[in-house]
Amino acid sequence: MAISRKISDFIGRASFIRKMFEEAARMRADGQGPVYDFSLGNPDLEPPEAFRERLFAVVGDKSPGTHKYMANVGYESTRRAVAAALERELGLPFTADSVIMTVGAGGALNTVLKALLDDGDEVITPLPFFVEYGFYADNHGGALVKVPSRDDFQPDVEAIEAAITPQTKVLLTNSPHNPTGVVYSAEVLAALGDLLRRKSEELGHTIYWISDEPYRKLIYDIDRCPSLFEAYESSIMVTSHSKDLGLPGERIGYLAISPKADDPATLFGAMAFTNRTLGFVNAPALMQRVVEDLQEVTVDIEWYRRKRDLLYDSLTRFGYEVTKPEGAFYIFPKAPGGDDMSFVARMQEKRVLVVPGTGFGSPGYFRIAYCVDDSVIEGALPLFEEALG
Amino acid sequence: MAISRKISDFIGRASFIRKMFEEAARMRADGQGPVYDFSLGNPDLEPPEAFRERLFAVVGDKSPGTHKYMANVGYESTRRAVAAALERELGLPFTADSVIMTVGAGGALNTVLKALLDDGDEVITPLPFFVEYGFYADNHGGALVKVPSRDDFQPDVEAIEAAITPQTKVLLTNSPHNPTGVVYSAEVLAALGDLLRRKSEELGHTIYWISDEPYRKLIYDIDRCPSLFEAYESSIMVTSHSKDLGLPGERIGYLAISPKADDPATLFGAMAFTNRTLGFVNAPALMQRVVEDLQEVTVDIEWYRRKRDLLYDSLTRFGYEVTKPEGAFYIFPKAPGGDDMSFVARMQEKRVLVVPGTGFGSPGYFRIAYCVDDSVIEGALPLFEEALG
Repeated sequence: MAISRKISDFIGRASFIRKMFEEAARMRADGQGPVYDFSLGNPDLEPPEAFRERLFAVVGDKSPGTHKYMANVGYESTRRAVAAALERELGLPFTADSVIMTVGAGGALNTVLKALLDDGDEVITPLPFFVEYGFYADNHGGALVKVPSRDDFQPDVEAIEAAITPQTKVLLTNSPHNPTGVVYSAEVLAALGDLLRRKSEELGHTIYWISDEPYRKLIYDIDRCPSLFEAYESSIMVTSHSKDLGLPGERIGYLAISPKADDPATLFGAMAFTNRTLGFVNAPALMQRVVEDLQEVTVDIEWYRRKRDLLYDSLTRFGYEVTKPEGAFYIFPKAPGGDDMSFVARMQEKRVLVVPGTGFGSPGYFRIAYCVDDSVIEGALPLFEEALG
Repeated sequence: MAISRKISDFIGRASFIRKMFEEAARMRADGQGPVYDFSLGNPDLEPPEAFRERLFAVVGDKSPGTHKYMANVGYESTRRAVAAALERELGLPFTADSVIMTVGAGGALNTVLKALLDDGDEVITPLPFFVEYGFYADNHGGALVKVPSRDDFQPDVEAIEAAITPQTKVLLTNSPHNPTGVVYSAEVLAALGDLLRRKSEELGHTIYWISDEPYRKLIYDIDRCPSLFEAYESSIMVTSHSKDLGLPGERIGYLAISPKADDPATLFGAMAFTNRTLGFVNAPALMQRVVEDLQEVTVDIEWYRRKRDLLYDSLTRFGYEVTKPEGAFYIFPKAPGGDDMSFVARMQEKRVLVVPGTGFGSPGYFRIAYCVDDSVIEGALPLFEEALG
């Protein structure tokens, strides 16, 4: 056997999380009673009715050529619809040429990083971080540099400044944030924009800012998510309809380039090229046509807010230390006793599955993904209380 | 502006083909009469009726959870259906764990190459070659080594032997072949298998053989495409339903690992990992469910055979030198006068769009993609005749 040594190493190092998932799968199948599974961000919520209606309409349309290749960047009409929705939301002049339809946000992130990175370039990301970012940066010759965040999980601007080197090419943030549920504030985004502008000038090359926002519509205490586009010019947002329309299996997302970026046409051309040559070729045709008319549609936010409130109120009442999440469907409490790995193992014995903060580069915490039925939360709450005792 | 230097270089070097496509697009829009466009492998043929029926059935199924994430490798039922079809065709014991559903064949090729290659590894491919292979190998640190083929466009086993070095990790072939339409013979495949077995032994590491077969069902003179699985053990086939079901825009394909491979579970695990971490995550859910029941369905082969016959018979009658294609929807004649770039430019003046062999690493030829309406071929034939004069 001689698979790639690098891939073999990666798989070996990831094995402790894999073992946890294997144990969870075994538990789900063992017939020994309910399993309270908060381990995966796989929404247990059907897409909205408008999605189903639109899907029927698209499938019923017998126009020829609807399953053919289109331009690699996606249908112009879909890109125009996305741009118009962004313009309505943000008041910036997005056009079809600001947008490339992608195979989800994961596809978009690889497309953008490939277009920007050369070997040895550094990508800074705040902790805790989504573990895939490390693989994505490495795929394209980059190195992920992880920087501690403030106690409230907002980015620490000074720590990010200290991490910038001549090799820094990208700042990669994620808001609303997985695994903490924190929404980055407009003030922190503005401070980051000022920092990147100053450092790009000093270094003599542009530091690009990529914001990964698959949860941008899932916010509970504010009207809209503060945007990097208001804070910085050389910026690219990647997102998907996995969470806001509940379609993670369909792999439909997009990237949007700031209309204020320097030479946006070159960025667009480079990403059209990398989206093609990484083998994505184009976002799935049928789903492009479906989401075109659903840019203002979102799953039932109340369904998530209720769970957020139930979990946050209960956990704090029990005595857990936890930052209140404002978006996404994650909550990231401190692990009682401080050792997240042993806490997670203890919960597993109670048939409650959560993910250790270690898996996100932040030991001492654990993640609950609450995109599950209320009954799962209600069944698990006494077990969380018990685990404190 | 500071996009990746490498991507900037790639885009710069690809510009002559891009200019050709831009000129073609301009021509299609100029209202100066018909354009005979043979430049793209984008089938002008609707998916079969069985596809439409199955799509309606899948969309009408209101079971919950059909748009959620599934395992990264795809639905087990879909993978079982693919494995069963391969077993019926090839008589080898494929199982669900031989198959990973992918974002088309392009997604599959990147998934496989990423799982196999380390920096500096070499990937051998016969000429002429699909230009994307160079980008795909480079994406994962590999170098593409292009080897001349025989005059009949079958692989030249001796030339491939001469190209093997200690860095050789992969042989990448494509049959039925783009751009020549040639189907690799069972004899040549067997000889290649013998060579790879001997060289793997000599080098002390396995040389993997990847066969890219999106056109495997589009064959005109034989019952089934000779398979690498009968010729060699350490082998992986990648394919898609882009051509056999006419769904290129939907990005649905798969990879299949030989049941005779050494340690197939490690190969499967590595490719499950790279399919995820390259950002594909999983093949589009809805299309997985659709193709599950369509493994024995193919577009109307006669539609293509008629065009192959019309073009081959006419071009040879006119005096073009051309190898008879046995599959796919391409024909690759010698450019009259020997200079493919000037011949292609001359045809463009006649509003006939074909691709120079230079774009496939084989100057002196040109490619006609005949996945077009009969009227396009009939309209262009006199212009091909005229161009010889």
